[in-house]
Amino acid sequence: MAPPRDSTDTNDADRVREPIVSPYMPKYPDPMSNISNFKIIESTLREGEQFANAFFSTEKKVEIAKALDAIGVDYLELTSPAASEQSFNDCKTISNLGLKAKILTHTRCHMDDARLAIETGVDGVDVVIGTSSYLREFSHGKDMDYITTKAIEVITYIKDQGKEVRFSTEDSFRSDLVDLLSIYKAVDKIGVHRVGIADTVGCANPRQVYELVRTLRSVVNCDIECHFHNDTGCAIANAYAALEAGATHIDTSVLGIGERNGITPLGGLLARMYAADKQYVLDKYDLKQIRDVENIVASAVDVTVPFNNYITGYCAFTHKAGIHAKAILNNPSTYEILKPEDFGMSRYVSIGHRLTGWNAVKNRIEQLQLVDLTEDDAKTITAKIKELADIRPLSLENVDVLLRQYHSAKQTSNHLNVLQQYVNPDQLAV
Amino acid sequence: MAPPRDSTDTNDADRVREPIVSPYMPKYPDPMSNISNFKIIESTLREGEQFANAFFSTEKKVEIAKALDAIGVDYLELTSPAASEQSFNDCKTISNLGLKAKILTHTRCHMDDARLAIETGVDGVDVVIGTSSYLREFSHGKDMDYITTKAIEVITYIKDQGKEVRFSTEDSFRSDLVDLLSIYKAVDKIGVHRVGIADTVGCANPRQVYELVRTLRSVVNCDIECHFHNDTGCAIANAYAALEAGATHIDTSVLGIGERNGITPLGGLLARMYAADKQYVLDKYDLKQIRDVENIVASAVDVTVPFNNYITGYCAFTHKAGIHAKAILNNPSTYEILKPEDFGMSRYVSIGHRLTGWNAVKNRIEQLQLVDLTEDDAKTITAKIKELADIRPLSLENVDVLLRQYHSAKQTSNHLNVLQQYVNPDQLAV
Repeated sequence: MAPPRDSTDTNDADRVREPIVSPYMPKYPDPMSNISNFKIIESTLREGEQFANAFFSTEKKVEIAKALDAIGVDYLELTSPAASEQSFNDCKTISNLGLKAKILTHTRCHMDDARLAIETGVDGVDVVIGTSSYLREFSHGKDMDYITTKAIEVITYIKDQGKEVRFSTEDSFRSDLVDLLSIYKAVDKIGVHRVGIADTVGCANPRQVYELVRTLRSVVNCDIECHFHNDTGCAIANAYAALEAGATHIDTSVLGIGERNGITPLGGLLARMYAADKQYVLDKYDLKQIRDVENIVASAVDVTVPFNNYITGYCAFTHKAGIHAKAILNNPSTYEILKPEDFGMSRYVSIGHRLTGWNAVKNRIEQLQLVDLTEDDAKTITAKIKELADIRPLSLENVDVLLRQYHSAKQTSNHLNVLQQYVNPDQLAV
Repeated sequence: MAPPRDSTDTNDADRVREPIVSPYMPKYPDPMSNISNFKIIESTLREGEQFANAFFSTEKKVEIAKALDAIGVDYLELTSPAASEQSFNDCKTISNLGLKAKILTHTRCHMDDARLAIETGVDGVDVVIGTSSYLREFSHGKDMDYITTKAIEVITYIKDQGKEVRFSTEDSFRSDLVDLLSIYKAVDKIGVHRVGIADTVGCANPRQVYELVRTLRSVVNCDIECHFHNDTGCAIANAYAALEAGATHIDTSVLGIGERNGITPLGGLLARMYAADKQYVLDKYDLKQIRDVENIVASAVDVTVPFNNYITGYCAFTHKAGIHAKAILNNPSTYEILKPEDFGMSRYVSIGHRLTGWNAVKNRIEQLQLVDLTEDDAKTITAKIKELADIRPLSLENVDVLLRQYHSAKQTSNHLNVLQQYVNPDQLAV
C-alpha cells in the first residue's frame, strides 16, 4: 500500500506541515480522508456480468482480467461460483493466472456458497446480505439476529481457511442505522477484514454517504468498502465522499456496467481521483490502459463507448467556444484539469464554427507560419469564419484554405477582395 | 413558483411538523435546502451549442426550445447574440415564440454585448466574467476592481431596461474566495437578480460545493444559480449539494452536451431530484417528454443516446441477477427508486442467463399461466436454464419454449426426459 502523501515522520510531529499545493485540494490534509490512499475493487467480472448485455466466455474473462491487472487495480471481483458451473470454473481459472491483483468472489451469506468459494482458490470472499426493511420483507425475509448469527458463522469459516473476508450489507442507505451499526460492530469484533456499504438502488447522495461512512468509521477498526449504483447520477461523487469520510476501498466496473445503468465507472473514478491527487493516481495506475480495457469490454457487451464518457469520450478534450480556445492556447490549465497526455489522449481546439474567437484563429495562423498576418487580419478573417459558419461548420481544412488564400492574396494587397468571394463554406472544399 | 412542500402556515408556527415520509429524505426539512423548491435553466441552446458536434439551424433550435418548454423547464438559455448574425436572430425568434419558459441569453460582461442582448427581446441576460487567477492571467487579464466596476455598469444597464439579470463568475472553484464574495456582495447590493457559480473546468466536488454555496448564501440575498461541468463525474451530485446548501437555480443541457464531456444532464438531474422529492418533480415537470427531447438533440448533434443514460438508457430498468429479479417481482421498490411508468418507460426482468434465480422463473410460469407447475418444477427448470446459459444467454422466447415444452410433457409425466433432450440453446429457437 502506498503511504498517504501527507504522512509525516512521527519523530518530528511538531514541525509545521507544508500546505498541499494543488488548488483542488484542501490546504491542510484531513487525517480521516483516504483521498490519497485508496484501493480499487474492480467488479466488471461480477457486477458487470449483471449488465443486461453481458455474457462473458472464459477466454473473454481472462482477457479482461489481464487488462485490468495491467492498469494496476488492487482487486478483481468475480461472479459467485454458486451461479453456474462455468462461474465456478472461471473463479478457478482466474485465481490461477498469477495476476498482481488479488482475486475475490462475491457470494451470498451462506455456508454452501462460502465452501464453494474456498474450493476455487480465490484470495478472498466478498460476502453480502440484504438488510434494508424492504429487502428483509420482500427478499430473504430473515431478521437481524438471524443475519448476525449467520454472518459470524460464514466469516469465521472463511477466516479459518486463511482467506480475506468482507461482509457487506445490501441497500445500506435504506437500512435501519442501528441494525447496520450493530451488525458491522459484531463482525468487526470477530476480525472481518472489511465491511461493505452498498447503495444497491442508487438512491444515496454524497452528504448522506459522508455521514454514514464517518459514523461507521468510529464504530469499526477494519477497512471500509463502498459500492454505489448510478441511477441518480451520484456514483462517482458518492465514492469520493466515502473516501473523504474514511472509506478505504471503492468498487468499480469498466464503463460502469452493472445492474440497470450500472455503478461507479473505473475511468470516471480515476478522473476524479486524478483531479484530487494526481501524483498518487499516476504512481499507482497506468492510465493509458483505460482506453484499451474500455474497448475490450464495450465490444464484449456490444455497446458503444458513450460520446460523453470520462477521459475517452471523443470530445472529452475538445475545446470550442472562442473564449475557451483562446485561454487553452495560452495555458491548457485554464480549462483543463485532466492533462490529455497522461491518459494517452490528445487535445483538440475547434475553430471553424460560429462561436469561434480571433485569438484561436491567430493561433492557427501562427501554427501555419503565415508570419506577416497581423491581429487585425486575424479579426477580419474571424468575422468571415463566423459568417460562413452560420451556414455550416467549417472543418480545420476549410479554415486553412481560407487562411492560405487570404495570406497569398495579401502579397498583392488583394486579401479583402478574396474574402468577399467566399459566400458559402463549400467554396472552401479541399 | 411552486411553494416548498414543507411550507407551514405562519399563523400556526408552533404545530408539530410532519416528518417527510420518503426514506430518501431527511426526517425533518432543512430550511436552507431548496431540494423541494428549485428551478432549471436549460442551456442546450447555449452550453450545448459549445458541444463539439453541435450546429443548430434556426428550425432545430425552435424545435428543441418547444420540446424543452413542453417538459416545463423554467428558463431557456441561448447563445450570445454577439457570437454571430444567426445567433442574434435566433434570440429574437425564440423570444417571440410565446413559450412559458423565460428566455435568457448568455453574454460576456461588456456593454456592447448587453445592448445587443436587450435588442433581441429576451427576458433576461446571464452575464459572465472569469475571475480565477488562472483566467485573470491567461484569459482577459483584468483585475478585480476593474471587473467589479464593469459588472456594476452592465448590471445597472440591463436592470434599467426592465430585464432580469444574472452575474456569474467563471471557474469559481479556482477563484480567490475573498475576491468572489466581494464581487457577489457588490452586485447583490445593486439589485442583481441572481449570482452564478460556475465549475467551468469540472474540478469541484460536492462538499466543496456545499461549503461555497452555504457561505455565499450568508453573503447575498439574491437567488443563486449553479453551473457544473462533468469532467470528473460530479455534475449531478454537485447540483444536488448546491440545492441542499441553498442554491435556487441549476443549469442543465439535454444529455449533458457542452464543452468537452459536458454539464449536468437534464434527465439525470430530474432522476436525482425525483429520488429526493418525487411529488415536486412530478407536479412541475412532464417526465414522459424527456425521451423525446433527448432523441431530437441526439439526432441533431449526431450522437447515440449512451447505453447507460439516466432513465432512457436501454437498460435503466432491466433487472438481471436472480436475487434482484425475485425481489423486484415481489415489490419493485426493493431495487427501484425510479418508477419506470412515471418516465413513460417499462421494466424488464431478464431471466434467461446464468445468474438467474428460480423465483424469477416461477414468476414467468405464472405469467404464462402454466398453473400446474410447482416450485420444484421451477427449480428444476432453473437449473437447466443455467446449464444452457453457460453456452449462450437465452432470449425470453427461448425460456418460454422450454417452459411450455416442460409443461406439456408434464401432462404425460415425460417432463424430465424433455429437459434432458436440451443440451444447447439453439434447440430452443422459436
